Amino acid sequence: MTLPDHIDGYGPVQAFAAVDARTVAKSMGAGRGSETTPRRGSSEKLRETLRAAILETGLRNGGTISFHHHLRDGDDVLRRVMAELADLGFKGLRVAASSIFPAHACLVDYIRSGVVDRIVSSYITGPVAEAISAGALPTPAVLQTHGGRAWAIESGVLAIDVAFVAAPAADSGGNLNGVDGKSACGPLGYPMVDVRFAGHVVAVTDTLLDYPLSRIDIAQDLVDLVVVVDTIGDPARIVSGTTRVTEDPDGLAIARLAAEVIDASGLLIDGFSFQTGAGGISLAVADSVADLMRRRGIVGGFAAGGITQGIVSMFREGLFRVLFDVQCFDLAAVASYRDDVGHLPMSASLYASPGGKGAVVDRLDVMILGAAEIDTRFDVNVTAVGGGRIIGGSGGHADTAAGAKLAIVTTKLASRDNPKIVDRVECISTPGESIDVVVTEAGIAVNPRRKDLIEVLGRAGLPLVSIETLRRLSAQAAGRDGPACRPQGRIVAVVEYRDGSVIDLVRQPLAG
Amino acid sequence: MTLPDHIDGYGPVQAFAAVDARTVAKSMGAGRGSETTPRRGSSEKLRETLRAAILETGLRNGGTISFHHHLRDGDDVLRRVMAELADLGFKGLRVAASSIFPAHACLVDYIRSGVVDRIVSSYITGPVAEAISAGALPTPAVLQTHGGRAWAIESGVLAIDVAFVAAPAADSGGNLNGVDGKSACGPLGYPMVDVRFAGHVVAVTDTLLDYPLSRIDIAQDLVDLVVVVDTIGDPARIVSGTTRVTEDPDGLAIARLAAEVIDASGLLIDGFSFQTGAGGISLAVADSVADLMRRRGIVGGFAAGGITQGIVSMFREGLFRVLFDVQCFDLAAVASYRDDVGHLPMSASLYASPGGKGAVVDRLDVMILGAAEIDTRFDVNVTAVGGGRIIGGSGGHADTAAGAKLAIVTTKLASRDNPKIVDRVECISTPGESIDVVVTEAGIAVNPRRKDLIEVLGRAGLPLVSIETLRRLSAQAAGRDGPACRPQGRIVAVVEYRDGSVIDLVRQPLAG
Repeated sequence: MTLPDHIDGYGPVQAFAAVDARTVAKSMGAGRGSETTPRRGSSEKLRETLRAAILETGLRNGGTISFHHHLRDGDDVLRRVMAELADLGFKGLRVAASSIFPAHACLVDYIRSGVVDRIVSSYITGPVAEAISAGALPTPAVLQTHGGRAWAIESGVLAIDVAFVAAPAADSGGNLNGVDGKSACGPLGYPMVDVRFAGHVVAVTDTLLDYPLSRIDIAQDLVDLVVVVDTIGDPARIVSGTTRVTEDPDGLAIARLAAEVIDASGLLIDGFSFQTGAGGISLAVADSVADLMRRRGIVGGFAAGGITQGIVSMFREGLFRVLFDVQCFDLAAVASYRDDVGHLPMSASLYASPGGKGAVVDRLDVMILGAAEIDTRFDVNVTAVGGGRIIGGSGGHADTAAGAKLAIVTTKLASRDNPKIVDRVECISTPGESIDVVVTEAGIAVNPRRKDLIEVLGRAGLPLVSIETLRRLSAQAAGRDGPACRPQGRIVAVVEYRDGSVIDLVRQPLAG
Repeated sequence: MTLPDHIDGYGPVQAFAAVDARTVAKSMGAGRGSETTPRRGSSEKLRETLRAAILETGLRNGGTISFHHHLRDGDDVLRRVMAELADLGFKGLRVAASSIFPAHACLVDYIRSGVVDRIVSSYITGPVAEAISAGALPTPAVLQTHGGRAWAIESGVLAIDVAFVAAPAADSGGNLNGVDGKSACGPLGYPMVDVRFAGHVVAVTDTLLDYPLSRIDIAQDLVDLVVVVDTIGDPARIVSGTTRVTEDPDGLAIARLAAEVIDASGLLIDGFSFQTGAGGISLAVADSVADLMRRRGIVGGFAAGGITQGIVSMFREGLFRVLFDVQCFDLAAVASYRDDVGHLPMSASLYASPGGKGAVVDRLDVMILGAAEIDTRFDVNVTAVGGGRIIGGSGGHADTAAGAKLAIVTTKLASRDNPKIVDRVECISTPGESIDVVVTEAGIAVNPRRKDLIEVLGRAGLPLVSIETLRRLSAQAAGRDGPACRPQGRIVAVVEYRDGSVIDLVRQPLAG
C-alpha cells in the first residue's frame, strides 16, 4: 500500500516504518524458560553501579541534579551520588535538594572543590548552612518554599537534568514505593514532582522486589534507571525534632490559648482541616484541639503535613476522615501510610504549588506555625538570625500561611536571651500579610488586617494585646531588644516567596 | 528593605509584591461559624450548570474537547456536554474521545450541523462509525491506539483545550474518584493523561461528597471546575461485550490450543504476566491458563487490562500478585478495584505510551488478541471491513502486540461466510511484525520471524501449519475468498500506529 504524502484535513503523512526497537528485540526473550524473566528487566533499567547510571544520564558539568529529603537526617543517597560525581570529576553542578540536613555535610567539601557551585533548597541546616553563611558558595544559595520549588519545576524555571530518588523499594521496571523495605519512609511527595519534569530519573534503592511492586508511589513510566545499593540511609533518623508534647508550663499555656483561638474562630466544626509542625508546642495544640473535637463529636475533613504520630492517632480515632501526607515525620506515620485507608499520598505540587489548580494548603482552616522571630508587621523569620546565620528556611511555612484561613504563630516571648517578637525581623520568610494571630504566654496579638478575628476573639474574652506590647514584653523577657539593623554585607542567599519573587536576602555582616 | 534589580549568580530580581489574591480573600471566610466551610469550596470550583462551566473555560470555535469511555455504552456525559455546546452555538469542534459507542450517536447530528468537524478516537462503533464511513465528516477521522493517544497528548501533538471528565465521585476541591457513587466505574486511566495536559479540566459528577474524598484517582491540582448533574450515565452498561466463557466447541478447542502454546513457550513461570480482551474465547484461554498455574503452583506477576471478573477471580485466588487496571470491563472489576490491595490504577500512559520511560505493555509476557481479519503477513485488522465500514479500531491492540513477548491472535477460520484469514487485510490495525502466533480450530500458524517459537512449539508436538494453509482453509470454511482489493475511494479515516505514524487509511469504495 502506498500512502499519500499529504491528506487534506489531516496534514503531512509520516508513514509507518516499523514496530519500535524494543519490540523487535522481543524475539530474543521467549521460549527460554527461567532465563526469560530476569533478563528482560535487567536489560532495561537495572544498572550495576551508581557510576554506570550517572554516566548513562549524560549529565554534564554545570548541570542540575535534584534530591529529596524523606529520609531527612538519615539520608545517605545524596552523599553516595555526590561521591561518585566528585570521583568522576564533575564541576560546577547545581544541587536542587528539597532540604539539606547535617547528614549532607559532604556538600561543604564539594563546594570548596568546585564540584558544586549552586544550591537551591527549601530548608538548610547544619554544616552546609554554616558554610553558605560563611560565604563558601561563589553565587548566592536560593531558598524556596516547598510549594515554590514544585512550581519552579512545573513552570520550567528550575530545570532538573537528573533527579535522584531515594526509593525504599523498587522493582526492575522502575516502579517505586516508600512503604516496603528496610528504609520505608512513607509517601515520596517531593520527588513526585521532580520525576515528571527531570531529563533523567535515577532511582537508588536498597530493596529490589519482584516486578511489579504491589504498592506504587512513583510509576515506571517516569523512571529511567534503577541502582541497588546496600543502604539508602537510616530511617531511624527520620525523626529529627521532638515527638513529645511540651512539658514547659509556658508552652502548655500557649497551646491552650491557641486552641481557644481556634475554638473562638468558628472554624472548629465538621469538616475542620488542620496542619501543624512537629514541635512540642504544636503537639500540645493538637492535643487540645483533639479534646475539643472529641467532646463535641466533631469530625474533621483532613489533617495535612508532615504527618506525625499524634496526627495519626487523631485520624485513627476518627477525628479526621483523611490524611494528606507529603512526607512522614516519624515511623508511626510511615506505618499508618502503609496500613490505613484514607492516609493519602500528596505530591509537593498537590500540597502547596501556587501555580496549580488548587493546592491542599488552600483548603486548610488552621495552620500552627513556629517562628525564630516575628515582628510588629507580623513578618516571620525562620531563615536566618544572628547576622546572616542560616537556620533552616521556609519549607512549607509561607505556603501554609498563605493558604490557611487562620495562620497562628505560637511562640514564647523569648528563647534564652533572644527576644522572639522584634521590631523588624532579620529576614522575612513569610510575609505578615498571611499571618493572622501570634500566641504567646503573655497574650494574643491579632493582625490588624483581621478585624473579623479581633471581634470574635475579643467577644470570647481572650487576652488580646497589641503586637507592639508583645514586642516590648519580649524585649523585657530577653533582657534586650532584637537586632537593631540587618546585615549589609555580601549576599549569601536569595529568599524566594512561593511565587518565585524575591522576598528577602540573607547577607553577611559588613566586615570590620 | 530595597532589593537590587540584579544579583550576580542569581539574575534579575522580581521583588515580592503581595500574597496572592486567593489568600487576601481569606479574611472574608473565618469567624462565621457554619457559613465558612461550604462557602470556601463552592466559591472556588463548583459551578451550577455545565453551561456556566463551559463558558468559563474560554473554549472557542474550532477548539478540541476530550472525553473518556470508562462508562462505555452507558456514558451520558459526552451527550450532555455536546448538547450544551450545540445550544451555545459552537462550531467546528474537534472531539478527542478515547472511544465512541452507540450511546454517543448524538455526534452524528452535530457533525451534520457543523458543531463537530473532526474526530480523534481509539475505537468507534455504532452510528458514529457508520456516519464516518458514509463520509459525514468533512475531514478524515483519526484513529489512534490507546498508547498512541496518550503519547500524542504528552508530546503536544494532540492539544486539548477542555477535558471533560465523567467522575463517579467528586468533592468541591476537584478531587475525583471512580469508586464511590452510584456510577462507580473503577480507575480513570484515560483522563489521567488528559487532565495533565488540557488547558482546562471540567469534572462532571452525579455524586458530590464532602471534601476531601477518601480515595483519589485524579487530584484537585489538575481540575479546574466541578459540575453536578443528576446522572453521568448507566454503569450497568459498562459491560458491552460478553462476560461468559465460550461454549462453542471450536472456540473451546482454540482456547485449549492457545493455552498449550503459552505452556510450551516457557513463559508460564513465576512472575508470568498476562492480558486478554473480554471475548468468550479469551475468557476460555484465561480459564485454561488458570488451571495450569494452579496445578503447578505458579504465582504470576501481574495481569493488565481492561480488567474483568475472570481476571479478578484469578487475582483473588493468588494467581497474580498485582492487577494493572486502566479501565474496568465489568462491575465485579469495579468492586475489586475499590476493595482489593494490589489492584492498582494505571494511566493510559503507564499502560501503553510508546514515548514514556517504559509502559506496562512492554512488560507483558502474553497477550491474547482478537481479529476481524488477519492476513498472510500476520497483519491484523480490527478497524474496517466490508469496503470501508468502520467496526472499532485498535484500542490497545497494537500497543499490547508490540509490547508482549508472545502476542497470540485467537480466531475461528470463518465468521459465518466471512473468511478470517485472508491474503491481505482491508485495513492494517496492528502490523504483522508484532504478531507471533495465530491459533485457529485448524491449527497454529507461527510468524516466520519467530524461529525460536516454531522450534519450541514443534518440539511440544503442537499442530503447526503455515499461515497460507490457514488462509486456504479459511476460504473453504467461509465458502469464499477474502476481499480481492481495498476500497480506493475517499479517505474517511487515517489509522495511526502508536508512534503517530500512519499505518493505513480507511477509504470508501469508488462510486459506480
